[in-house]
Amino acid sequence: MNGLLRRQKETSIQKCMSEIRTEIKQLGEFGLIDRIQQQFTLTNATSRTGIGDDAAVIDAGDDCLLVSTDMLVEGVHFDLAYTPIQHLGYKAVAVNVSDIAAMNGKTEQITVSLALSNRFSIEAVDALYAGIRSACENYKVDLVGGDTTSSSSGLVISVTALGRAKREQIAYRNGAKPNDIICVTGDLGAALVGLQVLEREKEVFLANPDMQPDLEKYQYLVGRQLKPEARTDIVFDLAEAGVKPSAMIDISDGLASELLHIAKNSQVGIRIYEDKVPIDHSTYETAIEFKLDPITCALNGGEDYEMLFTISKSDQEKIKNHPDIHFIGYVHERKSENVLITKAGTPVPLRAQGWDHFKA
Amino acid sequence: MNGLLRRQKETSIQKCMSEIRTEIKQLGEFGLIDRIQQQFTLTNATSRTGIGDDAAVIDAGDDCLLVSTDMLVEGVHFDLAYTPIQHLGYKAVAVNVSDIAAMNGKTEQITVSLALSNRFSIEAVDALYAGIRSACENYKVDLVGGDTTSSSSGLVISVTALGRAKREQIAYRNGAKPNDIICVTGDLGAALVGLQVLEREKEVFLANPDMQPDLEKYQYLVGRQLKPEARTDIVFDLAEAGVKPSAMIDISDGLASELLHIAKNSQVGIRIYEDKVPIDHSTYETAIEFKLDPITCALNGGEDYEMLFTISKSDQEKIKNHPDIHFIGYVHERKSENVLITKAGTPVPLRAQGWDHFKA
Repeated sequence: MNGLLRRQKETSIQKCMSEIRTEIKQLGEFGLIDRIQQQFTLTNATSRTGIGDDAAVIDAGDDCLLVSTDMLVEGVHFDLAYTPIQHLGYKAVAVNVSDIAAMNGKTEQITVSLALSNRFSIEAVDALYAGIRSACENYKVDLVGGDTTSSSSGLVISVTALGRAKREQIAYRNGAKPNDIICVTGDLGAALVGLQVLEREKEVFLANPDMQPDLEKYQYLVGRQLKPEARTDIVFDLAEAGVKPSAMIDISDGLASELLHIAKNSQVGIRIYEDKVPIDHSTYETAIEFKLDPITCALNGGEDYEMLFTISKSDQEKIKNHPDIHFIGYVHERKSENVLITKAGTPVPLRAQGWDHFKA
Repeated sequence: MNGLLRRQKETSIQKCMSEIRTEIKQLGEFGLIDRIQQQFTLTNATSRTGIGDDAAVIDAGDDCLLVSTDMLVEGVHFDLAYTPIQHLGYKAVAVNVSDIAAMNGKTEQITVSLALSNRFSIEAVDALYAGIRSACENYKVDLVGGDTTSSSSGLVISVTALGRAKREQIAYRNGAKPNDIICVTGDLGAALVGLQVLEREKEVFLANPDMQPDLEKYQYLVGRQLKPEARTDIVFDLAEAGVKPSAMIDISDGLASELLHIAKNSQVGIRIYEDKVPIDHSTYETAIEFKLDPITCALNGGEDYEMLFTISKSDQEKIKNHPDIHFIGYVHERKSENVLITKAGTPVPLRAQGWDHFKA
């Protein structure tokens, strides 16, 4: 125990902070994840894959278990000035269900842990759990555990989702092959533009609390930001159509960032076309109103929770009439040549400028 | 979407907080958990048990999967003024491994989510993960996922542990039967008394930063607080001896609180003897030094992470020579008659005065 006390003196947080000090933002979120991943290896036979995909894969008899976890922090991921607390509960579940869907699996259980400051009443907690319950009912998920604790400031929600899939049905990030078709669901950029609207209305409200926010014309955008849905329907539709994606990821950090994840993990290059990227007309118009470039919103705006996946060319016919799946480009073999072809026909390198908490 | 916006106006957090307001501390942590549990039912066939035990139980082929989650919040669960950050990482894993052990299972995977303020450097994060890795190696657990995000203040660690057990080997809280023997491992109260020592040394340090803390004589107590171990050895030893506990729980909130959980869940009464409760001599002496009653420290001090379990009388012979298992009382059928028999022979009702974050 002498060692314990010595180590304690040597490595206390003050010590760590007074000597060599490297800021986390120098690495960024993905750099930090890579660094952690390199320090850990898998040793148990049941651990099939660990850090580095939308969910970890664990043996569970004939099926595999999929495990994903997300932490939402007040002031970083949400602002309760304009986020109804039950929508926050719904969203906390939906984003995890989306991660499991991105592995081509179905979420069956979740755990929810909360840290709550004394600003929150029982009524606020009830409203939060009403949202969680609504999402559980919608996605047919059971809440099986959690932890509740106090916090000195703000609200932190940590959700872990447990899903299931047949081993051969799991879609990883690393399976994209040259000539595969790149598909994206729904439309992109709306959640980011919705956030701009909410931030503006908050400013207006703070300046004049009697002013009623005029959100009617922005309903779609605001709804996409506050209450995203996980595309579990796509997992179902693909299975119905007999299509297994060669690679899949959900769009939480922006299309460009997710495309680069697939390209890096699959060791391929990707090429997408600006005129194929789905953008809703209200996203387009409102982006312009905010002096934002609509395609930049679609490429770099996060939190759309749409599905991005690649399929074999031979599968394209099976889903070509799906009303909500868009073919935006293709995979090629030239690694690190990841480009967007603009409407004018110019190739522009894709860059990940998605949200990074540590660089924001 | 009209509804969305209307609900948004009606149920924003400000609204929740300005109308009826019930403080969380009126319910307390266990009251809040009961309230949440009542709002949720299990619907998926694979969800065997949900909220209400040390871990949830999920079907996974021939085995069952055990899921437990704990959140540690800076300023509530730990103070980095005297907690070496790598010990914190170790402890965050150990307390979850302890929960899985309390189901008579073995932890195989964990996920770790972190919220970090910009006070933390890469070096501090590395030290935290060094502790996590050390615990993973010691308990043979794989880190398979997680989430890292920024926070506006302080550090939050959320760990989810996934364990495994044969269905028939799982020990729930609700299996204690009249005449069962109540067993406890190790010794109790040391973590609480260790915390008192650390708090006192912090005060001394704040008053005079040049003063070297004199912790030599308190090494055992301080070690129990800062770097608790999960009693995975007990799960192994019980299996070796051919003993399956009728009920089991780990002691995180204090012996009295955990005994009452077993009594309530098993619908039985319990009777323990003061002179049988294991207390280390240094816990005893230091409690007296701090003007604390040693038996109160053992009954109500949390974070010992020892195992509390009940066994059939016929199994007692099999483990009677185990050096670290103590028989402290027995189970009877008179529900809600839960008593401690003092050294003087007086029965005293057991009360849960364990740590409650919301009432602290």
